[in-house]
Amino acid sequence: MRYIHFSPDNRRRLLGIVQGNTIRSLGETTLDDLLARGVDLASCGAALNAGAEEFPTAAVTYLPPLARPGKLLCIGLNYADHTKESPYDQPDYPTIFPRLNSSLIGHDAPMIRPRISDSLDFEGELAVILGSGGRHISKQRALSCVAGYSIFNDGSVREYQFKSPQWTVGKNFDGTGAFGPMFVTADELPAGGAGLKLETRLNGQVVQSANTNDMLHDVASLIAVISEAITLEAGDVIVSGTPAGIGWAREPKLIMRAGDVCEVEIEGLGVLRNIVVDEDAASQR
Amino acid sequence: MRYIHFSPDNRRRLLGIVQGNTIRSLGETTLDDLLARGVDLASCGAALNAGAEEFPTAAVTYLPPLARPGKLLCIGLNYADHTKESPYDQPDYPTIFPRLNSSLIGHDAPMIRPRISDSLDFEGELAVILGSGGRHISKQRALSCVAGYSIFNDGSVREYQFKSPQWTVGKNFDGTGAFGPMFVTADELPAGGAGLKLETRLNGQVVQSANTNDMLHDVASLIAVISEAITLEAGDVIVSGTPAGIGWAREPKLIMRAGDVCEVEIEGLGVLRNIVVDEDAASQR
Repeated sequence: MRYIHFSPDNRRRLLGIVQGNTIRSLGETTLDDLLARGVDLASCGAALNAGAEEFPTAAVTYLPPLARPGKLLCIGLNYADHTKESPYDQPDYPTIFPRLNSSLIGHDAPMIRPRISDSLDFEGELAVILGSGGRHISKQRALSCVAGYSIFNDGSVREYQFKSPQWTVGKNFDGTGAFGPMFVTADELPAGGAGLKLETRLNGQVVQSANTNDMLHDVASLIAVISEAITLEAGDVIVSGTPAGIGWAREPKLIMRAGDVCEVEIEGLGVLRNIVVDEDAASQR
Repeated sequence: MRYIHFSPDNRRRLLGIVQGNTIRSLGETTLDDLLARGVDLASCGAALNAGAEEFPTAAVTYLPPLARPGKLLCIGLNYADHTKESPYDQPDYPTIFPRLNSSLIGHDAPMIRPRISDSLDFEGELAVILGSGGRHISKQRALSCVAGYSIFNDGSVREYQFKSPQWTVGKNFDGTGAFGPMFVTADELPAGGAGLKLETRLNGQVVQSANTNDMLHDVASLIAVISEAITLEAGDVIVSGTPAGIGWAREPKLIMRAGDVCEVEIEGLGVLRNIVVDEDAASQR
């Protein structure tokens, strides 16, 4: 089952099921709420669907799959070839940093190049959305906590990422965390989102090309390791890391500028596309 | 005005005004909600107070001043003498890392020493709670965004803080982020919480002693700098950094163990006290 949060009119915020090019509305409920209530989203779409309005996908505004995740944890340095292009040695333990909800945007929303830095970069990633959680979750049980998957473009303002020892600010500029286009229930994909082709394109040119099998810490391991320290909850999101090819590691650097079109495609999850817009132009809209 | 979140019976969660040793209940509202609604907490306590129950402070369970802050940003390396005892050079830009809500505890709650690491450390800090926000807030206007202050003990599991380049996990173990005892409105303190004596005591012995004037980036600067990148909102929290004296930098290391009593006192804000409890003992309660 494929769900989207969308607005048909830039006022109402609706949840819908995507079938081909048609969205069948489920009304003003949210995935955040359905996940918190423990609804089985793989099987219950039809039951939720009574009396639904329909909309063509081309005519709506896409919103992030979750409105306000309780926590969104990104994994750095989780593909060996990306670590090699970074200034870091490969740690044994996952490198984890949070994204704040204030940074999130949906599919087709403008990705904002901030006024104070010309260093906006892309990072295509597989996002994992939890349907249940807990503490000290074993690796064997971890995948039973996964409700589904989506795509994330972890837009990074590199100069600010490296202004101090912690990456937080460079990873959390407003309008830089693209999330979508849809939430796809786990039953539609291989266990743990393994073996999926991941490709990032900038203005149509392939800039990242990898397979989710290349993650150093797979999805089950990430859930198990994080939950050794932190209670995970339904609706939490783990963004599983980016492969090699980022713009900041190239010679010369490849920096995203206004008008650039960045697409992240993951097999079975669709294409997350965003157009870069300068902050000052965006604030005048 | 001094507000606390508390439970009189370990079932209800109430907000109250503290007057001496008495709490006058405001019912089941929350500071999160009042801040989001823009209520002027310095002047409106009496208006909120009609028909209130009263409780003695000694008979209730304290809860964190905010139930679920939209974001809680901690500042690292914000006292020069603490940076000198750390493995880092002093960056010009503030070092910022988020705390997740899943890690928060109130005054007098057990601080949890996790089963997987014997490296729990204290960090006494001034917490700043915003009553309004925005983007690109000038330093001149920044302090008008502050609703009030509290105390934070940024309990840190040092081994996990340094297992990768990002501190997130070591700073976010369940039951390690102590926040309280109260929320004190900004009008009761000097502008920006400046000039306040801060002292951390472990089992009665002074382990950190400083003045908030020693911050490298003061409260107004922190608000201005963060908002260059990130939209701040009412109810967001900035935890402004810890001075020298942490246990991990001592020779031999001073590590908190079950039964230890850690207190953080800040002039005008009271004492935040927590007793360390082993995870396995805590989960059997």
